[in-house]
Order: sequence, then structure tokens, then C-alpha cells
Amino acid sequence: MIKVGIVGGTGYTGVELLRLLARHPDVDLTVITSRKEAGMPVAEMFPNLRGHIDLVFSDPQQANLNACDVVFFATPNGIAMQQARDLLSAGARVIDLAADFRIQDVSVWQHWYGMEHACPELIAQAAYGLPEVNRAQIRHARLVANPGCYPTAVQLGFLPLLEAGVADTQMLIADVKSGVSGAGRKAEIPALYAEAADNFKAYAVPGHRHLPEIAQGLTRFAGQPVNLTFVPHLTPLIRGIHATLYTRVAQGVDMQALFQKRFAQEAFVDVMPAGSHPETRSVRASNLCRIAWHRPQGGDMVVILSVIDNLVKGAAGQAVQNMNIMFDLPEVAGLEAVAVLP
Amino acid sequence: MIKVGIVGGTGYTGVELLRLLARHPDVDLTVITSRKEAGMPVAEMFPNLRGHIDLVFSDPQQANLNACDVVFFATPNGIAMQQARDLLSAGARVIDLAADFRIQDVSVWQHWYGMEHACPELIAQAAYGLPEVNRAQIRHARLVANPGCYPTAVQLGFLPLLEAGVADTQMLIADVKSGVSGAGRKAEIPALYAEAADNFKAYAVPGHRHLPEIAQGLTRFAGQPVNLTFVPHLTPLIRGIHATLYTRVAQGVDMQALFQKRFAQEAFVDVMPAGSHPETRSVRASNLCRIAWHRPQGGDMVVILSVIDNLVKGAAGQAVQNMNIMFDLPEVAGLEAVAVLP
Amino acid sequence: MIKVGIVGGTGYTGVELLRLLARHPDVDLTVITSRKEAGMPVAEMFPNLRGHIDLVFSDPQQANLNACDVVFFATPNGIAMQQARDLLSAGARVIDLAADFRIQDVSVWQHWYGMEHACPELIAQAAYGLPEVNRAQIRHARLVANPGCYPTAVQLGFLPLLEAGVADTQMLIADVKSGVSGAGRKAEIPALYAEAADNFKAYAVPGHRHLPEIAQGLTRFAGQPVNLTFVPHLTPLIRGIHATLYTRVAQGVDMQALFQKRFAQEAFVDVMPAGSHPETRSVRASNLCRIAWHRPQGGDMVVILSVIDNLVKGAAGQAVQNMNIMFDLPEVAGLEAVAVLP
Amino acid sequence: MIKVGIVGGTGYTGVELLRLLARHPDVDLTVITSRKEAGMPVAEMFPNLRGHIDLVFSDPQQANLNACDVVFFATPNGIAMQQARDLLSAGARVIDLAADFRIQDVSVWQHWYGMEHACPELIAQAAYGLPEVNRAQIRHARLVANPGCYPTAVQLGFLPLLEAGVADTQMLIADVKSGVSGAGRKAEIPALYAEAADNFKAYAVPGHRHLPEIAQGLTRFAGQPVNLTFVPHLTPLIRGIHATLYTRVAQGVDMQALFQKRFAQEAFVDVMPAGSHPETRSVRASNLCRIAWHRPQGGDMVVILSVIDNLVKGAAGQAVQNMNIMFDLPEVAGLEAVAVLP
Repeated sequence: MIKVGIVGGTGYTGVELLRLLARHPDVDLTVITSRKEAGMPVAEMFPNLRGHIDLVFSDPQQANLNACDVVFFATPNGIAMQQARDLLSAGARVIDLAADFRIQDVSVWQHWYGMEHACPELIAQAAYGLPEVNRAQIRHARLVANPGCYPTAVQLGFLPLLEAGVADTQMLIADVKSGVSGAGRKAEIPALYAEAADNFKAYAVPGHRHLPEIAQGLTRFAGQPVNLTFVPHLTPLIRGIHATLYTRVAQGVDMQALFQKRFAQEAFVDVMPAGSHPETRSVRASNLCRIAWHRPQGGDMVVILSVIDNLVKGAAGQAVQNMNIMFDLPEVAGLEAVAVLP
Repeated sequence: MIKVGIVGGTGYTGVELLRLLARHPDVDLTVITSRKEAGMPVAEMFPNLRGHIDLVFSDPQQANLNACDVVFFATPNGIAMQQARDLLSAGARVIDLAADFRIQDVSVWQHWYGMEHACPELIAQAAYGLPEVNRAQIRHARLVANPGCYPTAVQLGFLPLLEAGVADTQMLIADVKSGVSGAGRKAEIPALYAEAADNFKAYAVPGHRHLPEIAQGLTRFAGQPVNLTFVPHLTPLIRGIHATLYTRVAQGVDMQALFQKRFAQEAFVDVMPAGSHPETRSVRASNLCRIAWHRPQGGDMVVILSVIDNLVKGAAGQAVQNMNIMFDLPEVAGLEAVAVLP
Repeated sequence: MIKVGIVGGTGYTGVELLRLLARHPDVDLTVITSRKEAGMPVAEMFPNLRGHIDLVFSDPQQANLNACDVVFFATPNGIAMQQARDLLSAGARVIDLAADFRIQDVSVWQHWYGMEHACPELIAQAAYGLPEVNRAQIRHARLVANPGCYPTAVQLGFLPLLEAGVADTQMLIADVKSGVSGAGRKAEIPALYAEAADNFKAYAVPGHRHLPEIAQGLTRFAGQPVNLTFVPHLTPLIRGIHATLYTRVAQGVDMQALFQKRFAQEAFVDVMPAGSHPETRSVRASNLCRIAWHRPQGGDMVVILSVIDNLVKGAAGQAVQNMNIMFDLPEVAGLEAVAVLP
Repeated sequence: MIKVGIVGGTGYTGVELLRLLARHPDVDLTVITSRKEAGMPVAEMFPNLRGHIDLVFSDPQQANLNACDVVFFATPNGIAMQQARDLLSAGARVIDLAADFRIQDVSVWQHWYGMEHACPELIAQAAYGLPEVNRAQIRHARLVANPGCYPTAVQLGFLPLLEAGVADTQMLIADVKSGVSGAGRKAEIPALYAEAADNFKAYAVPGHRHLPEIAQGLTRFAGQPVNLTFVPHLTPLIRGIHATLYTRVAQGVDMQALFQKRFAQEAFVDVMPAGSHPETRSVRASNLCRIAWHRPQGGDMVVILSVIDNLVKGAAGQAVQNMNIMFDLPEVAGLEAVAVLP
């Protein structure tokens, strides 16, 4: 059994990690910390966990995280980078669900995240935890930077085209819609029910923190700089991301074959039949990314549709998938539940 | 492995049965029928099942249901009663998720359901599938009438008080709120998103078909006729039932002890700490019923709060629980998933 | 033109007051204050007001509220009571949308609201602003306590029965469901979209602040103490309250006549045909209360259904109605819009 | 007073027309027809109209539409074209909210709508009812083709750029999100609450009927053929359309000036400050289109955000606006209500 610790389990990625790990056959959940909620039973905060998880939130100062085999950080940005060095020294592995180790260029990171990086020397050894791209590196990593939710949906959607060199790298558009849980379990007015229900809006069009992360990935896939326009939107979903991606691909390219071949071995990427319209609910509460493509009116412009559950494949589920890879478990362990529909 | 057939799998109780059975360790799903959709892969209608279920809807005429160990009817009312006799004769057991065998008094049934009963002689041998009450009978039953969603939430909430004889049987009120999936996957205007979203209403106050079913159960628990007022409401949830129950109980009664003792052995009833307010999402996609009670201002009137997922404990999950009991499997097999929150 | 000031216009009752007053033919909106947002154009915070309201939030210290004919307090509890005395002395009238002057017994108020009352001597002269009951008093009042949202829906529903002396005053149950805007525009976790969407729960069953306000009103209508059980619930609506009321009424009483007669002259109470099920959306964004009643299975128990928009008849609309009465305007001025459906 | 008739008022555009016309100062609503609901009071079907509209649905055969000054068709496609000729001959004017007269090229129309056109000779004289473009023509028209909801949002967003000749007409992308009421009040499974809530999907990516209508408009604005990719999505809103538009514009162009100048005289187009993110709720139940633009990272790609209420500016409100123009009324008559937020 793998001894697992969680730092900061009071947000949505935290409760989702707990939901998944509670039923994971190879995990012994040993500690979960929260500065503010120390002493409170986890199941009191998240009643869905009653009867499944008996843990109590521990004070971070007193929690013995060093004894864990792996520690997940389900914290705000800027926390994991302060504790990772010690944990790694103590022999634990670290999976950060926040952004601290996602961007290889530390000055870019510091620009977008508005703080100084606390351990820039670790960035280079952090594996970017997108298994469909980096499985080999993840397997041997001691520190994994779990991807952001938008970046997961967008990168998987563009991946086959960019690797194959068939997309117009100078015209990549990602028009992406996210459910409200993506904003986290934070008491902020724009995330209130009476603000976000029956409402749709774009936000952060001038620049969103996930832009450099996505651009870094797409550049790597393409082997050259790309020109990406990324427009995030907030839509009245609890969970779910729907990425609508646009680029130009010459008309002879066999898109369906390209996608199917690229993801043939992937347990968590479902290439749907040509002409499909994947729905976010078809992956709700599951770790799948479902993808389909279109070439409207037979022109050069192609449209790729990519959906995930932002809390699962976009966060906690992918983190568990990474853990499975790091510890040589079946990659699907604990992640086999069927999506909940309706 | 138990060979399972499903008749009529195109509604919400059907897809939920499929979701649960797809991961059930002891089930071999062999056939699913649909008159209208014969030939269509199940996963094409319900994309969450892609990769989990390869079955194709069969024509009911050609499906060999007799070879099944158990057949679930996820059909409209009035279908199971036409096929149950033959299936039972062939040795299959039957679990009807509709109402055909729920009411012991056939004239009452015919009054509320507006049709003649096709096999009244089977009603007496049908076990009413509320395991918390009828486990022994279910274990040996060949025909199980799976309870309605409202009846499950209301009966479990009133059960301890009525069995203990402490409730005022002449003043039982069930003010119950249901999500829209309770209306089924039927193309009807009141269930449209633009009708049911951001809207709340009572309906069927003069009389709802679940009234006689609930009254039959409460009368049995109390050992005497009861006076029940049942008001169902439609609330903008996909899934979930919240029953708010009112009755009078003398002030000396130790309510918490009564509830805890009654359900101490029940895997799927969670008596919450005194003073709790169970939320429907705390049981979303799980087979649990969570219950709490209040005695506002210390008076005689008590308020019991009982929540279930109408598609799970209120339909498909309870049906699987019944199957587990009938086939001597662990009662929780296939039903251990944690509720999805948020 | 009536010169109107608003104190504290950054919440939902504030923006709703602005929406209604912007189109009121007899109102000159002269000042709106906000400590935190001084200097910000109102229409920047509430984009629906762009093009309709040019006002900028003023610093409360510098706003000349004394020059107003009437000042609305759309503030948290405990603010109006600190400023009412001065405003009244200066000749302005005051309408408080919060609770400071709703409860005549100051010790009861102090118990439920947890603070000392700043001007108990004004309570007696405050008119309780439920026009259907207190119109004459409101007409001459200089200080109006605008009712709470739950109290409006519940009192209007029970009013005809209690005044007529036909209800069982010892068994009054109000099972009430509210949309999330009722919690205000406050950054609090339980009101987040990802918490409140697709979820239903009761709350504050042991005791809600609106309980004494409702009990005070019902006692007045009945002319004797009543025994009320009040259970509020949170339902995924932006706006809307649905009260389901229970009491006993002897079987000879002509309920429909009773309701129709009592509200015959009321512009904002719509008694629906017997057997109707009013929906919250049928009053969305309008000042109406729609009411219907049922006597299920012909027994003694009657069920009254009463719906309002909590921000209109339950707050800002009723406040405008009160202003209209106080200033001898047509009672419907500014309140004639048709409810928005769907 | 203008005598108004409505054909087919049982859908969402019908009830919205009724809501708006009920309060229009210059309208005398004289007849509303419905084949299926003849004899039913309008307010029984749509309870928000109780107390505002006393009309009863008439049988189309017996309704005297010829005596109307104007007849609105709130019908499915293919109805208006069968009756327009007679009505026009009788002296009535016609505003069709469906698609019968929107496309000038009848063969294109017949291809996309799958039926033969019943009066192709009228198409040329039909004014396309987008007032911001065709006001002069509408003023003298006897037959107006009211634009589709998607086409309104998309055309208004691209209009200034195409007229000014600054957009890349070979790369126009319209990624548009619509609320569910856009599908109409039709009993169809995909529009059920339990299907559309908490779900997001693209649909009709290979080709949607609004594509030729949009392309026709954009071509006209640009004075040359355009290359348009149009991807509609369904999002869990009751009302609202959010168009996210992409094209290339050289960096020197003063976008804000261009938009502000183009719409300076328009009562129903609100150009927001540069960098804004318009929200659908900011126009809910109002006739406004709010627009903002962005140039992310300062490149050539510009993003235009355009929001409307699909039932108002996208249907009934625009129809009333057209009527106002045709009858020389103030263009804003009956359309001045403030958007409902929250």
C-alpha cells in the first residue's frame, strides 16, 4: 500500500482527490493537512465522504508528511514550492496540482504568477504530468507538475496535429468554456450562484495564466513557436471543460486516422467517431478526455472538440493517474468509474 | 457470474442501471432490449458508457431473456406485468423498477394507474424491495417490486418513529422535492430545460401515484391506518430527492437513539448527527439515504430530513441492492462508489 | 418628482431597487451611497444598468441624504437604526429593507439579531410594510419596516384563513423554499455556484431569524398566539420563494371565496383558480404574489401554495409599493412589468 | 393604436412577444391564433400573463387577421410563406420571426430548409429586419424577415469591421453559445432539463441553418465573399447568446473608435469600454446587444464579444423594434425595460 499525504484538502481538487483515493485499491491515505481546519473531520466538511474517510485535518506543522510515499499538493499556487525540497530530501515524492512547477522558464512563471519562485532549481527536474506525452519521464520523476485544467483539454486536442506537423502553427485558436468549480472553493462574488447561474461570459481575454502553460506545450509538440489565441469562458456547469479548437489543416490529411493512431494506447483519451459532438456530461466525474473533429464545409479550417471534467482529468484524476505511473500500478487503478449521466 | 437482462434500457433508470452494472464484479450483462432502438449500440445513446458497455439494444421479440438469471424492467408502468409470468416460469427472477407490483391491493393499483392488472395473482408473491424493511422476504423472492423514489425517501424517514409507535399517525406530512430526472427521459414540455430551470413548483397536490404506495408502507410500519398528506414538488436538480417530514412526537423520546438503533446495521442509511441538514448532493450518484431530525423550538412537532439520489437509492441502485440480496452477494457489491461532490 | 436616496446599493436588493426606480415615472434618483465603492459608477458594478442610471456611488459621509424625500436602506441589519433618527428629524422618510424595525418587541429582536437596538423608541412608530394588511398605517408612516422575503410569502398565504378564524392556529407549518439570491450578494462559500447548483437542502431548522417576524404577523392576524413550525430550504433558483403551507380547516369552509374576497382589491396578490399550482417563474421579476390552495383527498388538512420573487415582492418591489402608498402615487407605479417567462 | 395579430403564439418567441406587447403603449393586441390550443386563454398557458392579457387562442381558420395592421408570425419555418400573400393583399403588414424570407437566394433557402418555397416572388421585397443595417428599407417595408438569433449577435459583432474593410474576410470565426430556449418550446429529448443542465456541447458543426443567413449578411457588409466558420454550442442558460468572434485586423486600426462611431446612434447596441467582458445576464429580458473587443497579446488576431437575449434582440424584441420603425413610432417604444440582473 502506498502511503499518501495531502496538503490542503479543503478545496475542490482536494475533495475530489479524497473521493478518488478513498476507493483506490493500493492507497493508504495517512494524513491530510489544513491550517484553518485542523481538528475537523474531513467528512464534516465534505459530507459525501462520510463513511468512506475517517481522517481529521491535521495542523501542517505537526503532520508527518515526510513518512509518506507521495504527497499531493491541492493548495493555491506558491505553496508546494516552499515545501517540495524538504519532502523530496526526506524521500517522499511530490505531485503538485497547482502551477508551481508547470512552466520551465522561471521568468515567465514569475511574470504570470506575480511572485518569486522559491526553488527554481527544482523546476528542471519536475516532470510535466501529462501522461499521454510524458509517460516515460513521469515514471521516473520524484516531482510531478500536474497540468492545469484548460491546458489538459487544449493540449490533448491539438497534440496529434502538431506532432504530425499538419496544423497551421501560426493560427491556433482555443475557445474554451469552463464550469465554475474551476475557480476553486473560494468565497468570491463572481463565483456565487446568483452571479454565475443563467449567465455566460468570457473572462481574462487579455491574458490568462494558463496561456503560457498551453503555449509551452504546443511549442514542444510542434517543435517550433506557435501563435495561440486563448479565450476562456465561464459557463453554468459545476464541472466540465469544453475546448473548441481551430486551426488550418490541408484537405488531404486523414484526421480520424491521425487522432486514433496517436491515442490508440491511451486508456483515458477517447477519440469519438468522425462527426461526433462530445458533451461534458459524458465525462462527468470520470478521468476521460473525449475528442472529435470536424472540417465544416470541407474547407481548410478544422474544428476539434475536446471535453474533460476539470476536477478529474483536469486535476485530481490526472494526479492519481500520475501517481499510478510513478508507482508502477495499473494506470487505471482507482479511475475506472463510469461517467455519471444524467 | 449472474446473467443479467434489462428490458427497456433507454430511460434514466436504464442508463443508471447500466452505469452501476458495468462495474459490478459479479454481473455478466447479457442482453438489453428496446423496441424502438433495436440495433443501436447502447453507448451511442449514452456516451458515458463508451468503452464500458459493448451491448447493442435487442429487439424484445428476439431477445432470449429466459436464459437470464435475473431480468430488470426499467420500463413504463404496465410492461413488467405482461412478461413476468413467462420469465418466472422459465426460471428467471424479476426486478421491476416500475410500479406494477408495488401495491398489494389490486383495486387500489388499478384506480391510481388507470389500467387493468395483467397478472394479479403474482402481486401477493412479489416482495416489496425496501431492504431495510423486507430483507428476509427479498432474499427468497423470485419477483421484487422495486420501490418508487418518493416512497423510498419518505418511508425510510418515518420508519423508526412508526415502528416504535411514537409518531402521531394521524398527522403525517411529507413535503418532498424532486429533481427533474424523476419525470423520466420523456419528451414532454414541462420537463424542458427552459421550463424547469430557475423554477420551483408543487404538482399533483390533489393526488400523486406514489401516495398509495407510501401510505401502504407507513400503515404497515405503524400497524394501523395513517393519515398522510403528501405534496411533491419539482426543483431544478438533475438528480436528488429531499423529503421534509412532519409529525408529532412526545418530548421525552430519544430521537437520535431511535434512528441510530434502527439503522445500525444498514449499509445504505446514514443517520447524521443530531441537528444536521443533509444535502442532496451528499448522496449524488450513490446508493445512500442520509437522514437527520430536528425538534424546532423544543415543541412536539418533529422534522425529519431524508435525502436520496432518485436514480440510485430511489431506483437503479436499490434494484442492484435487491439483486445482491437475492443472489447472496455482499449487499454493497457494485454500490460502493463515493457520492460526487461538488 | 420624489427625490430618492439609497443607502448601501451594492447588494441584490440594491440593484433591484435601482432596476425598478430607473423606470419609475415619479422618481428622481439623486444619491446612492456605498462606503466601499465610493466613486464607482453604479453601472460599472451592475452592467444591466448601463444607459439607465448615471449615478456614482457616494461616500456615506458626504452624501446629502437629508435633502431626499425618502431614503431606502438596502443595507445589512443594524445600519438603518443608526441613521433613521437623524433622517426623520431632517424631514426625510425612511424605508428599511433590512430587519431593524420589523419586530415590535425589542427584546425579541435583540435575541434573534444578536445586537443592541440603537433606537428602540422608533420601533413603535414604524409601520410594518405589508400593504395588504397595513395600508392605512403605511400611508401616514414616516418610517416603514419592509418585510422579509419569507415573511411576505408566508403571511400572505395564511392571512385569509387566520383573519377568518378558520385555521387551526396550533398547527401551522410553513415549508418554504428560497432561491440563492435571498442570501445576499456576499462572498460566502455556501452560496457559491458549485455548492448551491444541483443541490437542495434545508437550513436553520432549529431557528431562522424570520421566525419571530412571521409569528408576530400570524399572531396579529389570528388575534391569539399561534404555533408555527417554519422550515426554510435553499433551492437552485436565482430568484423565487415557494411557500407550502399546512394547517387544518374544517371541511365546510369555502376556501376559494375566502381568498378571493380577501384579496379582491389587491393589485399584487393573484388568487389562482382552485387546484392551481403556482410556479415561481410566473412571478419572476414582478411584484406579484400568486396563491392557490388544495384540500388533498378531501380531508381537514389544507395546503396553500404561495410564490413571490424574493427580490421584488419580497424586498425591493414591496419597498417601492410602500413608497407609492406613502407619497399618494398609484400603488402600481413602476411595478407594472410582466413577469419574465421563460 | 396599432391593431396587432399573432399567428402561433404557443412557443417561446410567442410568449415573449406577448410579454412585450402587453406593455406597449401603442398596441392593441387583437388576435392570437393556435391550431392546437384554440379556445384556451393565453394566460392559462403562460401564467406570467395572468392579469395582463385576456385573449383566448383563436382557431386560425376563423381569426380575422386581415383586419390587423400588422401580423407577427411566431411559427415554425414554412408557415408564414403560405399566408403572407393574402395578408399583404388585404393590407396588413407582416413580420415573420421564422426563416421564410431571410435568404434572398431561394435555392440556398430550399437547400437548407428542406422544402419548396411557397411564394418566392415575395422574397425580394422582404426587408431583412436588422435595423442597425436596414432601417430605411424596414421603414417602408410591408414584409419583414426578422433575423435569427445567432445571425443577430454575429452580424452586429462583425459589422463595423467588415463595413470598414479592416477585417480578414477569409478568416472569420464565430464560436457562439446559446441558451436552451433557442431550441424552442418543443418536446424533444435533447432539450430536457436532465439532458441540458450541467452539460455543454457543440452541435451542428458540419452546418447549421443560420450559416447561410450569417454569410449572406457578412458578404453584404464586406462587399465581397467571406470565409466563415460558424460553430454553435448549447449552454445551460434559459436565455442568452454569447458570440465570440475571431478575425485578423491590422494593428493600427482604432477598434474602439470604429465600433463607437458605427453604433453611436443605435439605441440597442451598447459598445462597452475597451477590455470589457459583456455577460449574457446584462441583457437578460432586454433588447440590447452589448459588444466589446480585445486584441490579446497585441497581435493581429482580434476577439469580439457580442451578447444578446436570444428571445428579445434575437427574436421578439427585434420584431417589436421593426414594428416601431414600420409604423413611425419611437424605436424604443415598449422596449425600455432594464435587463433583469441577477
